Amino acid sequence: MDYNKIDDFINSHLQNSIEELTKLCKFPSVSAKNQQLPETAYFVGDLLKKRGFDVKIGSGNGAPVVYAERKGVSEKSLLFYNHYDVQPAEPLELWKSDPFELRYDNDHLFARGASDDKGQIISRLAAIDALLDQESDLPCTIKFVIEGEEEVSSKNLAPFIENNIELLKADGCIWEFGGVNDYDQPIQYLGLRGICYVELSITTANQDVHSGLGGSIFPNAAWRLVWALNSLKDEDENILIPGFYEDVIPPSSLDLHLFGQLPDMREIYKNRYGIKEFINGVQGGVDLNVSEALLPTCTICGLSSGYQGEGSKTVLPAKASAKIDFRLVPEQTPEKILTLLRDHLDKHGFLDIEISFLGGESPARTDPDHPFVNLVVESAKDVYGMPMIVVPMVGGSGPNHLFIKHLNVPIVTAGVSYPGSQNHAPNENIRVVDFLKGTKHLARIISEFGSLG
Amino acid sequence: MDYNKIDDFINSHLQNSIEELTKLCKFPSVSAKNQQLPETAYFVGDLLKKRGFDVKIGSGNGAPVVYAERKGVSEKSLLFYNHYDVQPAEPLELWKSDPFELRYDNDHLFARGASDDKGQIISRLAAIDALLDQESDLPCTIKFVIEGEEEVSSKNLAPFIENNIELLKADGCIWEFGGVNDYDQPIQYLGLRGICYVELSITTANQDVHSGLGGSIFPNAAWRLVWALNSLKDEDENILIPGFYEDVIPPSSLDLHLFGQLPDMREIYKNRYGIKEFINGVQGGVDLNVSEALLPTCTICGLSSGYQGEGSKTVLPAKASAKIDFRLVPEQTPEKILTLLRDHLDKHGFLDIEISFLGGESPARTDPDHPFVNLVVESAKDVYGMPMIVVPMVGGSGPNHLFIKHLNVPIVTAGVSYPGSQNHAPNENIRVVDFLKGTKHLARIISEFGSLG
Repeated sequence: MDYNKIDDFINSHLQNSIEELTKLCKFPSVSAKNQQLPETAYFVGDLLKKRGFDVKIGSGNGAPVVYAERKGVSEKSLLFYNHYDVQPAEPLELWKSDPFELRYDNDHLFARGASDDKGQIISRLAAIDALLDQESDLPCTIKFVIEGEEEVSSKNLAPFIENNIELLKADGCIWEFGGVNDYDQPIQYLGLRGICYVELSITTANQDVHSGLGGSIFPNAAWRLVWALNSLKDEDENILIPGFYEDVIPPSSLDLHLFGQLPDMREIYKNRYGIKEFINGVQGGVDLNVSEALLPTCTICGLSSGYQGEGSKTVLPAKASAKIDFRLVPEQTPEKILTLLRDHLDKHGFLDIEISFLGGESPARTDPDHPFVNLVVESAKDVYGMPMIVVPMVGGSGPNHLFIKHLNVPIVTAGVSYPGSQNHAPNENIRVVDFLKGTKHLARIISEFGSLG
Repeated sequence: MDYNKIDDFINSHLQNSIEELTKLCKFPSVSAKNQQLPETAYFVGDLLKKRGFDVKIGSGNGAPVVYAERKGVSEKSLLFYNHYDVQPAEPLELWKSDPFELRYDNDHLFARGASDDKGQIISRLAAIDALLDQESDLPCTIKFVIEGEEEVSSKNLAPFIENNIELLKADGCIWEFGGVNDYDQPIQYLGLRGICYVELSITTANQDVHSGLGGSIFPNAAWRLVWALNSLKDEDENILIPGFYEDVIPPSSLDLHLFGQLPDMREIYKNRYGIKEFINGVQGGVDLNVSEALLPTCTICGLSSGYQGEGSKTVLPAKASAKIDFRLVPEQTPEKILTLLRDHLDKHGFLDIEISFLGGESPARTDPDHPFVNLVVESAKDVYGMPMIVVPMVGGSGPNHLFIKHLNVPIVTAGVSYPGSQNHAPNENIRVVDFLKGTKHLARIISEFGSLG
């Protein structure tokens, strides 16, 4: 394969890619709000059909899964996993422009989904365009699974995979995300933490009550919630749910070695996020890298109760709720954590706290020694000037465990994001330079994958 | 004094009173919206001038205070505290008629301010009319302080009182409200709890962060807030701020006796508010009454942090805040509680929690054994068929401490409201029967006050 021609094609067709990304980002496909999910699925299907893929749009429960396949020259199959749904754009006032109108500014592309995950989809299509410009057939079979519920815990993906194991069979899988680190070095993420996302809620009366009347005689929903939350984690970040740490596998010496090769993030994180110090007594270096990815968590994502407007209102709240996300590491499971949480609350007298399970994923990882990992890592050198830096696990979550469990496929990451991409936050964006490099790397991966031994 | 003639006069001049109340209620004197406050003040001043009072309309900051005085036969001075401002009438759609057009219906008078507090003002004037119909001079000197900012925390009342101590000097004060309970028994409220209202807030980062990234390494504003709150009060409702209870005067045996004579509210509260049980181990009866009014509180009025919308969002909040209202009992003060709170948070390592002081009033009460209280309580018998039921304290708050502190005056309640008066709510009203009884009671109080030993 002539990579100069491939790269020229990708460079000269950038405007096409930006136009397609603009159209895709216009769909406010917020899965948490069930917004225009089928419409977005059909638009993504059309993008794939244009590239000669056979496309099936799912018709099961939830947002439709887009499945697409195009046969290639070799026996090998490469599976891409992506998602067309996005996080809510709120708080809207912090966006510098409409989150659903792609904005090109100073070589960045801003929009909800620009990085997570619509920009990745468009990059993958651009790599395929470049390969098809050189050869009439793809070097290997390519399959896409593009779901619409990734941001709400992929709740209907498991049955889709379980019911389509033969169809989805592949020799390697490229995950939905990927990109560079703060030093513009390409990064290979080989595992994801799991997640157990719950809402705790409590109702103590049929209405809010004047605090002058009820303050010293009626139960207060907000106080009950605070006490229940406090029972879950202490100020030293120890999670107090009995059995929570039982199934945790400590990092291996290879893990520690690989984490030790990663850059020290202490100053970058402190400056970027305005953090004064880290928790768990971590100062930086390998400790920070290992903690970020391999410690399980109990994070309060939201708190809500009573009066939250300007100034004061003397009210005793009848209702209170908290959103909580537990990040899990191998071999914890969301099902077990949910059971342990209920037991813990009951044992501490919080039978009045209701738990709503809003989604879960198990943790999962790919062996850093797998040959497919090696191909992807080494093929980066030609584009980035260095092989990828291997990160055994990252802190985020996703349905990679479904693919690993049911398809027994190695999973790698490759993509167009950078640490300033603001995934899930206002002013989400990618840099054009990363889009071009990530796309060129993907073209090389696909090209070389056909001849993998 | 011939009370038969007094009562005949009040009965026969009811129509006059209703006409004056109609005119007064026509002013939409909503202090929260700064509506026609000077106009209402001048109209109230004219009502007092008609009764031979010297009237001064204040010209300081905020809504003008109306001060009026008429010398009487004895050396004694009786001070009335009232307000001409009202709460907003919204939600308007819940009113059965225009809130600013007094409506007479089935022996009730409906209008915003009918009970709180314009009806009280007109009743007091009607009592004075009845006395002046019998004698050319009043039995004692009468002073009125009628402010226009009671519904917005009386923010300019303190300097007015501090600057006019000689002018306002009195031997007794009748508070702006009063009336009967659910059993049509006249009630004497002798004190109000204080309040210290604060907002606790914390910022741990310059933006919300993806919980998959920051969950195990970055501080979480919501968790910091939960731990700080938890340090303030334990699950048994003990407030843990050192020194918080230091100045609390426990209920006297007279208090306990008086609270013991009040109705048992357990079933009424449980049914009205859907409460399963009370806090502090209280079952009902005298314990409930004492706890409601004489326990200091630390009430969370509101909690806010991170994502509060539908479904899940995996975010680590950078900001969190809680609104907290401490109700105070004698001799606690908001100033000291604020200092203790800051000390406590600092000592527990919560230097990152900011405190915004949103308002305070000191608690204050009048001795149930004061002869003036006895006069007011006993003089009710002739009108209501029973003496007033004495309630040593109620749970709400107000500016009574300003009068008690600066004027050293005993304060009682007497008036024309009933539990269905809907103060601050749609269809505010009084009953004609309560207006007549309350006015007759006031005439007796004024008459007998001149000869109080």
